[in-house]
Amino acid sequence: MKLINTVLFASVFAAQAQAADWQALPETAPAPADNPTTAAKVELGKMLYMDPRFSSTGTVSCNSCHNVMEGGDDSRSVSMGVHGKTGGRNAPTVWNAAFHGVQFWDGRAPLLEDQAKGPVANPVEMGMEDVETAMDRVRKIPGYKPYFDKAFGENSMTVDNAAKAVAAFERTLITPNSAYDKYVKGDKKAMSEQQVRGMEKFAATGCTACHSGPAFNGPQKLGEGFYSKFPTFADNAYASKYKFADDKGREEVTGKAADRNMFRVATLRNITDTAPYFHNGSVNDLGEAVRVMAKTQLNQDLSDADVADIVAFLGALTGEYPEITMPRLPATAGTSIVAD
Amino acid sequence: MKLINTVLFASVFAAQAQAADWQALPETAPAPADNPTTAAKVELGKMLYMDPRFSSTGTVSCNSCHNVMEGGDDSRSVSMGVHGKTGGRNAPTVWNAAFHGVQFWDGRAPLLEDQAKGPVANPVEMGMEDVETAMDRVRKIPGYKPYFDKAFGENSMTVDNAAKAVAAFERTLITPNSAYDKYVKGDKKAMSEQQVRGMEKFAATGCTACHSGPAFNGPQKLGEGFYSKFPTFADNAYASKYKFADDKGREEVTGKAADRNMFRVATLRNITDTAPYFHNGSVNDLGEAVRVMAKTQLNQDLSDADVADIVAFLGALTGEYPEITMPRLPATAGTSIVAD
Repeated sequence: MKLINTVLFASVFAAQAQAADWQALPETAPAPADNPTTAAKVELGKMLYMDPRFSSTGTVSCNSCHNVMEGGDDSRSVSMGVHGKTGGRNAPTVWNAAFHGVQFWDGRAPLLEDQAKGPVANPVEMGMEDVETAMDRVRKIPGYKPYFDKAFGENSMTVDNAAKAVAAFERTLITPNSAYDKYVKGDKKAMSEQQVRGMEKFAATGCTACHSGPAFNGPQKLGEGFYSKFPTFADNAYASKYKFADDKGREEVTGKAADRNMFRVATLRNITDTAPYFHNGSVNDLGEAVRVMAKTQLNQDLSDADVADIVAFLGALTGEYPEITMPRLPATAGTSIVAD
Repeated sequence: MKLINTVLFASVFAAQAQAADWQALPETAPAPADNPTTAAKVELGKMLYMDPRFSSTGTVSCNSCHNVMEGGDDSRSVSMGVHGKTGGRNAPTVWNAAFHGVQFWDGRAPLLEDQAKGPVANPVEMGMEDVETAMDRVRKIPGYKPYFDKAFGENSMTVDNAAKAVAAFERTLITPNSAYDKYVKGDKKAMSEQQVRGMEKFAATGCTACHSGPAFNGPQKLGEGFYSKFPTFADNAYASKYKFADDKGREEVTGKAADRNMFRVATLRNITDTAPYFHNGSVNDLGEAVRVMAKTQLNQDLSDADVADIVAFLGALTGEYPEITMPRLPATAGTSIVAD
């Protein structure tokens, strides 16, 4: 009897075994040694994250493109910053971004602390002259000082500390307890039959070659990137239709031809909530995205049934979003630091 | 002794007496008979209010220009809508908007329910073709249905109900317990000496001719506007410098010359947090705004001391902003209704 059970088990879970191991999402995120997450930093970071006054027009905050009321992004192919300007890449979700070893599609920022400084001075995002100019605005708001004092001590209103606070807040943006998490923790009824089938096909197809680990973004270590060439197989209709190869990816950061079309492997957590898909946001259907990935990365043509099953499984990766209280953004009494 | 006290009282409070009566802000707002405020409507309304997907670009929600994390506006002279387009008037605060008898600077919407429909189809605000097109987007989001069902019953996903929900949410945006409120309720230490002096000067100068009542916006009745000509005295440096008369105000609504430069009397609640000031957002200093008002409305030149005292008093009108939990905006699984 024991033998039979073992055989059955081995058969049913063969696909999972291929995926090395299925891991639930941790409930806390790793932080760098010089920026341990504290409640005071998180509180300040949330304020800075939500405050649009540090964009040139006063209309764009971190939350504008990485909206925590939604899937941590903005529902757009490419984001829209100040003056209606648009960038070249799709906004990655901020949810579980803490589980990425590096930030941005091309991994150009090792840590969330580095990433936080980027959009501020990007002319098509927040459009400030530079981060110090943005920080001057923060320093002009008296109500921010006590929060910096509490988080970092006296005389601490610096760009680095602002970025640390934002990163600390982002490290709390974790979505545990998805159907998948419950399933791998032992609740075998947490996923539907189709989702379990999809999970097996996901592994059998080879998706787990890159999309492994608790965030389904491959092996991760803070500051180290895990990249994949996209498209790996470029000679197909999808690659040309969606112009994936037009973006040189990480080559733009390193200048090395070997990094052409190399992109950070994206997390699949909450993927149902982050359409449209890919670095250029060119695909607005999760089923199509699955088909595209199988073809461009694994040179496989999936059946409609396979696609439906894998999409069902991906739905099991959508977790519980924690409740967030809106911060009160301190006023500049009787004057505006934005008014133009 | 009693007589002396009475005389002293009469002297100290002479100014207040002129203002008819000083009233604290009510803790609940009036609602029209056909839209009583319910928890289910407020919950739905908050979601719709925060959701940017009902703008053409997916970037502009009600909260973009009427930010409840700030003073209920956007720190800008005139707001910036889709594609970086700008309008002609300053965004009025949503805080305590429920205490206005009519909405918009020109009073063109009798109720918050009517106002809510305006910006959606305004090409320089949310930029949708029309409100029905925006409502089609709401209807495409399955997660909204249960909230409409709960608030309005089955088959209730209509523009009118969406507007009712938003209005119901806005009627909860009240900021009681300002220093002024505590003062008029009997806590005579709630305001500083300078604030009390400013209160007296505010009344003695004649500001209360228009800025009376609990919201300091004059007599109010739902659906009926209280307007003032601005500038009343146009032959002064302020009127020309800030080009106040360029905007025809309510004449644009009624077509009547008698309504030229007529504007709804604005609330002064939380005025410290809503710079820049006036319908065109041309004045970015509360002291200057006080000087301007005294000159253009009452033909008076205030001393610097008077201005400082009145500004101090206006600071006492900033109340307690209630804590708001961020709504979770329902996803459209595996697709975006915005993607362009």
